Amino acid sequence: MSTGAGDSAVYQAVERGSLYSLDYRVFIKGPQGIVSPWHDIPLFANKEKSVYNMIVEIPRWTNAKMEMATKEPFSPIKQDEKKGVARFVHNIFPHKGYIWNYGALPQTWEDPNHVVPDTGAKGDNDPIDVIEIGSKVAGRGAVLQVKVLGTLALIDEGETDWKLVAIDVNDENADKLNDIGDVEKVYPGLLAASVEWFRNYKIPAGKPANEFAFNGEFKNREYAEKVIEETNQFWKNLMKEASPALNTISRVPEAAHQATDEAAAAAVQSTPEHGASAALPGDVDKWHFVQG
Amino acid sequence: MSTGAGDSAVYQAVERGSLYSLDYRVFIKGPQGIVSPWHDIPLFANKEKSVYNMIVEIPRWTNAKMEMATKEPFSPIKQDEKKGVARFVHNIFPHKGYIWNYGALPQTWEDPNHVVPDTGAKGDNDPIDVIEIGSKVAGRGAVLQVKVLGTLALIDEGETDWKLVAIDVNDENADKLNDIGDVEKVYPGLLAASVEWFRNYKIPAGKPANEFAFNGEFKNREYAEKVIEETNQFWKNLMKEASPALNTISRVPEAAHQATDEAAAAAVQSTPEHGASAALPGDVDKWHFVQG
Repeated sequence: MSTGAGDSAVYQAVERGSLYSLDYRVFIKGPQGIVSPWHDIPLFANKEKSVYNMIVEIPRWTNAKMEMATKEPFSPIKQDEKKGVARFVHNIFPHKGYIWNYGALPQTWEDPNHVVPDTGAKGDNDPIDVIEIGSKVAGRGAVLQVKVLGTLALIDEGETDWKLVAIDVNDENADKLNDIGDVEKVYPGLLAASVEWFRNYKIPAGKPANEFAFNGEFKNREYAEKVIEETNQFWKNLMKEASPALNTISRVPEAAHQATDEAAAAAVQSTPEHGASAALPGDVDKWHFVQG
Repeated sequence: MSTGAGDSAVYQAVERGSLYSLDYRVFIKGPQGIVSPWHDIPLFANKEKSVYNMIVEIPRWTNAKMEMATKEPFSPIKQDEKKGVARFVHNIFPHKGYIWNYGALPQTWEDPNHVVPDTGAKGDNDPIDVIEIGSKVAGRGAVLQVKVLGTLALIDEGETDWKLVAIDVNDENADKLNDIGDVEKVYPGLLAASVEWFRNYKIPAGKPANEFAFNGEFKNREYAEKVIEETNQFWKNLMKEASPALNTISRVPEAAHQATDEAAAAAVQSTPEHGASAALPGDVDKWHFVQG
C-alpha cells in the first residue's frame, strides 16, 4: 500500500450523533484535521492518475441510505431524510440491502445545469456515484483506492445519475479486472443483478421503475474515465463560484470559500456526541418480491 | 397470540460464552426453568395440531452455522465446529448468508438406522430442519409458531436431510400461505432460490453440489406432515432408549433419562458467562460466484 495523500490509512471516520437517526454524521479527519471528503480528498490516489479515491457512504448489505451532505460545511456523511424520517432502502429479493460498497468520487459534481449529450438528461447535483464490487465489506466513511472499470447511466427521475463500477486496488481479484468486460468473467451475474437492483429499488416505496440510457448497457473504462474527467471539471467550476447553492468550504487552494480549523471544529461541535444507535425500523428486515 | 406452552413468549434465550467462539451456547429457559429445546418444547403449538413450534438456530442473512447440540445435556444451541474452528457458511451470489430463518422442530429425530423408503437414504441423526420464510428476521433461540407448507428432500452426503418449508403464523402473509403451491404466488422465485442455495452452499468449502430426492421438487403440506409425524415417532422411541448415543435428558414424563433442576443449573454453569463476541473471520464477507 502507498502512503500518498489518497491512502485510506490517512483518513479516519469520526462518528457523531446516533446511527439511524437524523442527527448522525460521519466527519472525515485527515492529516490536516477535519476535511470535506467531497472537496478535500484528491480525486486521484496516484500520480499516474490510474487509481481514484472513493468515499464509502454505504457498506455492502446495509440498508441505511447515507450520503455526503452537500449543503453542510465539511460535507459529513448523513442519512438521507424522507418526510422527516431516516431513509432506508428496501430489500428486493434476492438481494439484501445494497449489493456493493456504495459511495462517491471526491472532487466531482454532476452539474444540474448541464445536459449530458449522450443521455439527454441533466446532472443530478451530486458527486458521481461508485459501486465497488470487491470481496470485502468496507466501513462507512472509509476511503478506498479504486480502479474504475466502467459505468452505467441511470436515469433517475429525469436526471443523469452515473453509477461507476470500480474495484478496490487491494482486492484479491483486482489484477483480473481492468475493464467492464472482465466483470462477467470474475463475477458472473453481478452486472445484470446491478441493473436489476437499480431498476427496482424504489418500487416498494411506490415509485416507478428507474430507467437507463444506452438500453441499460454498461460503458467501458475509457468512457467512464471521460465522464469522471468532465464531472471533475464541473466541480472545479463550482469551487470558484462566489455564491454556490451547495456548500463549497474547502481546504483546496483554488476554493473561493476557504476552510479554517475553527470552522471545522465548529461544524463538528454543532453535532451531538456519538451515542448509541437508534432502533432500526422493523420493516427494514422485510424482503420485497418485485416482479421484473 | 395464544399463551399456550408452545408460545414463543414463554421461552427465553439465555446466551453463554462468546458469540462466534466454540464456547458459545444458547440455553432455553421456559416456565419450568432451563429446558432442552429439542426434547422439552412441544412439537405442536396448538391443540388442533395444525401449528408447530420451531426453534430458530440461524437468523436470516447470518452466516454462523448454529445448531442444537444433540450430544450435550439440555441441547443448547452452539456453533458447528470444523477442524477446531467455528463454522460459517459462505455467501453464494446473489445470496447473503442463510436466506430464511433456519431451525428445527422439537421432539423430532431423523433416525440414522431408518432408510426413508421414498428417498432410499437413511436419516441424518438430527431433529428435522425447517426454513421459515416470513418477513421478519427471527432471533437466535427464538421459538416461533409456524405453519408447515411443504418439504424438500436434500440428500446431504448420502443422508436424507428434510428441509421443511414453514411460515410464522403471526407473519403478515401467513393467511395467504397454506400449502407449497402458495409460496410461488406470494414469494416468486424463493423456492427455486432455496433449491439453488442448498445445492451450492458447500461448494466453496471444496465439497460437491448437494443432491435432492424427487428431482429437487418440493412435496406438499400433507406429505410434510407425515414426515414430521414419522420423525416424531422416531424421537419418542429414542427417548425410551436406555443408552442412546445422543443426550436425551429431558423433563418430559416419558423420558428414560429425567432432567433435574440441579442438572440444568450444572449444564449452564459449566459454560462461561456471556461475554463479548469473538471477531468474525475476514472471509465471511466474501461473495462466492458459483456457476449453477
